Amino acid sequence: MNIADSIWVMTSAFLVFFMHAGFALVESGFCRKKNAVMVLLKNVSVVSIASVLFFVLGFGLMFGEGTGFIGLSGFAPDPDATVAGAPDNLPLYVFLFFQLVFAATAATIVSGAVAERARLGTFIAFTSVASAVIYPIVGHWVWGGGFLSEMGFHDFAGSTVVHAVGGGMALAGAWVLGPRIGKYDAKGNAKPMPAHNFPLAALGVLILWLGWFGFNGGSQLAADPGPVGSIVLVTNLAASAGFIGALLQVRLRTGMMDLSMALNGALAGLVAITAGCDVIGPLESLLVGVVAGVLVVEGVMLLERRGVDDPVGAVAVHGFTGIFGTLAVGLFASDGGLFHGGGVALLGVQALGTFAGFGFAFAAGLVVWWLLTKLPGGIRVDAQHEMDGLDVSECGVEAYGEEPRGTHPDGLDSMAQV
Amino acid sequence: MNIADSIWVMTSAFLVFFMHAGFALVESGFCRKKNAVMVLLKNVSVVSIASVLFFVLGFGLMFGEGTGFIGLSGFAPDPDATVAGAPDNLPLYVFLFFQLVFAATAATIVSGAVAERARLGTFIAFTSVASAVIYPIVGHWVWGGGFLSEMGFHDFAGSTVVHAVGGGMALAGAWVLGPRIGKYDAKGNAKPMPAHNFPLAALGVLILWLGWFGFNGGSQLAADPGPVGSIVLVTNLAASAGFIGALLQVRLRTGMMDLSMALNGALAGLVAITAGCDVIGPLESLLVGVVAGVLVVEGVMLLERRGVDDPVGAVAVHGFTGIFGTLAVGLFASDGGLFHGGGVALLGVQALGTFAGFGFAFAAGLVVWWLLTKLPGGIRVDAQHEMDGLDVSECGVEAYGEEPRGTHPDGLDSMAQV
Amino acid sequence: MNIADSIWVMTSAFLVFFMHAGFALVESGFCRKKNAVMVLLKNVSVVSIASVLFFVLGFGLMFGEGTGFIGLSGFAPDPDATVAGAPDNLPLYVFLFFQLVFAATAATIVSGAVAERARLGTFIAFTSVASAVIYPIVGHWVWGGGFLSEMGFHDFAGSTVVHAVGGGMALAGAWVLGPRIGKYDAKGNAKPMPAHNFPLAALGVLILWLGWFGFNGGSQLAADPGPVGSIVLVTNLAASAGFIGALLQVRLRTGMMDLSMALNGALAGLVAITAGCDVIGPLESLLVGVVAGVLVVEGVMLLERRGVDDPVGAVAVHGFTGIFGTLAVGLFASDGGLFHGGGVALLGVQALGTFAGFGFAFAAGLVVWWLLTKLPGGIRVDAQHEMDGLDVSECGVEAYGEEPRGTHPDGLDSMAQV
Repeated sequence: MNIADSIWVMTSAFLVFFMHAGFALVESGFCRKKNAVMVLLKNVSVVSIASVLFFVLGFGLMFGEGTGFIGLSGFAPDPDATVAGAPDNLPLYVFLFFQLVFAATAATIVSGAVAERARLGTFIAFTSVASAVIYPIVGHWVWGGGFLSEMGFHDFAGSTVVHAVGGGMALAGAWVLGPRIGKYDAKGNAKPMPAHNFPLAALGVLILWLGWFGFNGGSQLAADPGPVGSIVLVTNLAASAGFIGALLQVRLRTGMMDLSMALNGALAGLVAITAGCDVIGPLESLLVGVVAGVLVVEGVMLLERRGVDDPVGAVAVHGFTGIFGTLAVGLFASDGGLFHGGGVALLGVQALGTFAGFGFAFAAGLVVWWLLTKLPGGIRVDAQHEMDGLDVSECGVEAYGEEPRGTHPDGLDSMAQV
Repeated sequence: MNIADSIWVMTSAFLVFFMHAGFALVESGFCRKKNAVMVLLKNVSVVSIASVLFFVLGFGLMFGEGTGFIGLSGFAPDPDATVAGAPDNLPLYVFLFFQLVFAATAATIVSGAVAERARLGTFIAFTSVASAVIYPIVGHWVWGGGFLSEMGFHDFAGSTVVHAVGGGMALAGAWVLGPRIGKYDAKGNAKPMPAHNFPLAALGVLILWLGWFGFNGGSQLAADPGPVGSIVLVTNLAASAGFIGALLQVRLRTGMMDLSMALNGALAGLVAITAGCDVIGPLESLLVGVVAGVLVVEGVMLLERRGVDDPVGAVAVHGFTGIFGTLAVGLFASDGGLFHGGGVALLGVQALGTFAGFGFAFAAGLVVWWLLTKLPGGIRVDAQHEMDGLDVSECGVEAYGEEPRGTHPDGLDSMAQV
Repeated sequence: MNIADSIWVMTSAFLVFFMHAGFALVESGFCRKKNAVMVLLKNVSVVSIASVLFFVLGFGLMFGEGTGFIGLSGFAPDPDATVAGAPDNLPLYVFLFFQLVFAATAATIVSGAVAERARLGTFIAFTSVASAVIYPIVGHWVWGGGFLSEMGFHDFAGSTVVHAVGGGMALAGAWVLGPRIGKYDAKGNAKPMPAHNFPLAALGVLILWLGWFGFNGGSQLAADPGPVGSIVLVTNLAASAGFIGALLQVRLRTGMMDLSMALNGALAGLVAITAGCDVIGPLESLLVGVVAGVLVVEGVMLLERRGVDDPVGAVAVHGFTGIFGTLAVGLFASDGGLFHGGGVALLGVQALGTFAGFGFAFAAGLVVWWLLTKLPGGIRVDAQHEMDGLDVSECGVEAYGEEPRGTHPDGLDSMAQV
């Protein structure tokens, strides 16, 4: 057991945990005011439920001994248990906690895509399956000794395992749920639905950016200063390039300096560099970031035109860019990448792996969302609740509550009584 | 002196410092808009004043050589001073800084309970005594070699020392001050006072949750990866279970998905696991968290019925759950806990210790608050200021300022002049 | 290469990165609602652009081999390159990343001073020069082996290199741009422009305070627990004293408890202790902080009277206090300070260095801002856009968007269609 490695991974896990604050702010900031409380409630619920279920079930499915498809041991393990996929240099619970905050991340990506119309109960049910079963299965393929790891598939910190998987489940959810009331006019043209709080959304993105240093840097699972320094630097450069790329691309498309697109561009750069941050150099990371930034703008617009209503752009940011980032390893990897003379072998494996991950998550997501439609109450709040906003109708409060008029006189009276 | 231990404790101290941002957001988010600036002013004042006074006075009372009741040396110590209660593996100032951010935490708990009606000057005076004297005395009993530590009382990171003590002082303050104008109607029934900003409150809770990894993990005072990994994992599980427990309990009671209660449930789980996070396993931490979540809902409702107006639920979250968490050590500790065959001896010591801590803090709080009522101006703002909101009346601003109408024409004129 | 040193510097770099969230919140919180999106856009743009340009150009100018005035090698370096000014104990990219987040900080200071009226394109152009050329040149003088370091100038973490330089460029910008429309009435008297979101601003300051532990603590560039513990402690005490000092001073001046001034006081204390946090003891750090707090209040008022409109007080907080903090080393340094019997030699060098840094930045800033006025479109948005707010006119959105009326019926219709 190595003390420095443990401190490093632990510190990284804290940063990844903090990403949940980032997700909560991005999503609630980009949604409408009338649904902000429900968004927050869903996000903190994801953390809570994924924490419990990944400890009890998911960790074993992901890292336990089993088949090439799934792990079958190591459930709710003791601190001194031996789990096949866990490294020797870290105490089991340090490794488990790092993996646990990752699992919650994958699940929370779905939240944004189904915001403003999914029922809380349905969403919690889906999240449970996502964090306890769907994500761990793909994780096992890649990081738990499963079939993709055997084939030489390279996904350092999860462009596919976390982001494409999250994006696939998000796409399934947004599709099955259908668009929000009012998103499309009678002719099927998308109408803008204004973000209700840009400062929150921007803060959320900066928190996610910060958290990503732990997400990618901690995935080294060791305090190796050389590799870690490079990983963090290219992570930062890709995010920067993604922001700039998206800002320019959306300017080209709409003539406006669109902050929400640019913020999504930064996230896109981060998602894209996640698979290859250990094998891609700083100058090429700029290229990966710029392309991701352009891609996310086009992706968001494409989905909107196709009638898929994804309020925060989760499918484009995590799904499309996750796939691109995984493929980018096959192009730019210093050892084996197409552009470094490595031929197409690695690129082929990367394509197989990322489409397997995204496809499985999308398919499994469809099945689970479809099953949930069969529950009493279905998966969607009723139309009146949706129009009134979920905060008032389901949570009984407003995000920014005001005192009712007439408080003052009442107050004085009651003061005399107390 | 150990480098790894120092890095770990330092990093943990940063996380604990960040909790002050969490407290500031939770409290201002849960309060009414008209008092948000004053809440923020109080919270940053606590950090500033407690920092100065704990360095000058509190640290010596807590860790200096003295009696079983109080330390009497080590005031404003030099960096190479020898202080009885300080460990050998850390430089003195690393240890002192970690303890300093704890002290500010205990003091800030009071802030929420007296919000929206206490005078700033009074509050600062109370905070000074709390962080420089009351908290360090109880701290000396438990962590400074005092009488409770001699008896085998176990409070790893402060369910009693920080939270029950903070809760006790908060109860005293809320009681002496009386409820906010308008909180109770003429028949004495409590009326809801809406939280003015849920996104801030939720962000605050996630920041506190994050900070708690340093609060509990850093209290090991060493970079021991095995214990620290377990501490962090159970801390996270207890928070998750607390969130879920409170969400279900308040649903049962009111039929609503009450985010504010659920957020308090997460904090309750964190408070409760704080005493025993080093001796309670992950599955039992779930139990501790759920009970804490249920308890905080009942506690908030109980206090409200009894006429104690605690705007953010600080007494229930920190006081009641702090006591419960300290007792839980006597039940669940792997070595000595009642449920692990250890009999009632440890439970008895835990009960004695936590009631001593809470009781002393409550009594000392009553005395200090009562003395402050004798000052000119008293402890409460005048009724008109309270109804107008403290921001306008005492700070001269609004939390969310708008430009006055007519700015544009004026502006054009003045531009011509400049 | 040292593992512990690398972890420490990396963790510190993360904290410094997070300061950008702090800057974004402080600035947008203190500005008017109608410009909040543009402020955020500028702040994230600074991070993105400075990241790219400092890697490509600035790092070499600052730390490359060259003359006493400027470095001339080490541009976009490979991970195993040898760069003259980089230390041996850290991998190059760990050191580079730490320096990169510093560079972005210097550039972002300007943002606040030119807020609410500068064109985005102009600002980005200025930022590019600032982070890629102006800041690295002064950095080379002090930290890259240049002429000031030869003279024994002491600026541990950047009161001059980062803050006075940022403040000098900010002063140039605010002066060339002129005041916001409506800031001064026809008689030239300043009118208050209300902060639009105090909770964001307060959160921003607490984030900056947290980040400063990495800013100062990480500047040791090694995990030396003794010095680092002291650095962090005095940093915290100076911030606390700055908050208290400014709160009392503004109370004296205006009779109000002015949160915005007190928050700036905390920042002033942090800026001031930055140069000497390694050579000033805790009790003297309190003095440095209090003076900085008083100074910032007077500085803000002075600039306002002189017709310099600095919406967030950046010139006073970073410029004036940065100069004061650098001079304070000459007064309080335990070895060589005037008050410790060291005579005026050190004080003289400190004065020379800080005025050289501030003066160069101010002059270079003037030249660049003036050149930018020659571009088509100039440096300032047109008056109508400024009065309408930059968010609507340039970004096409509002910071806190509301749904247009009539959404509901439309919504129902469209639902039927989908």
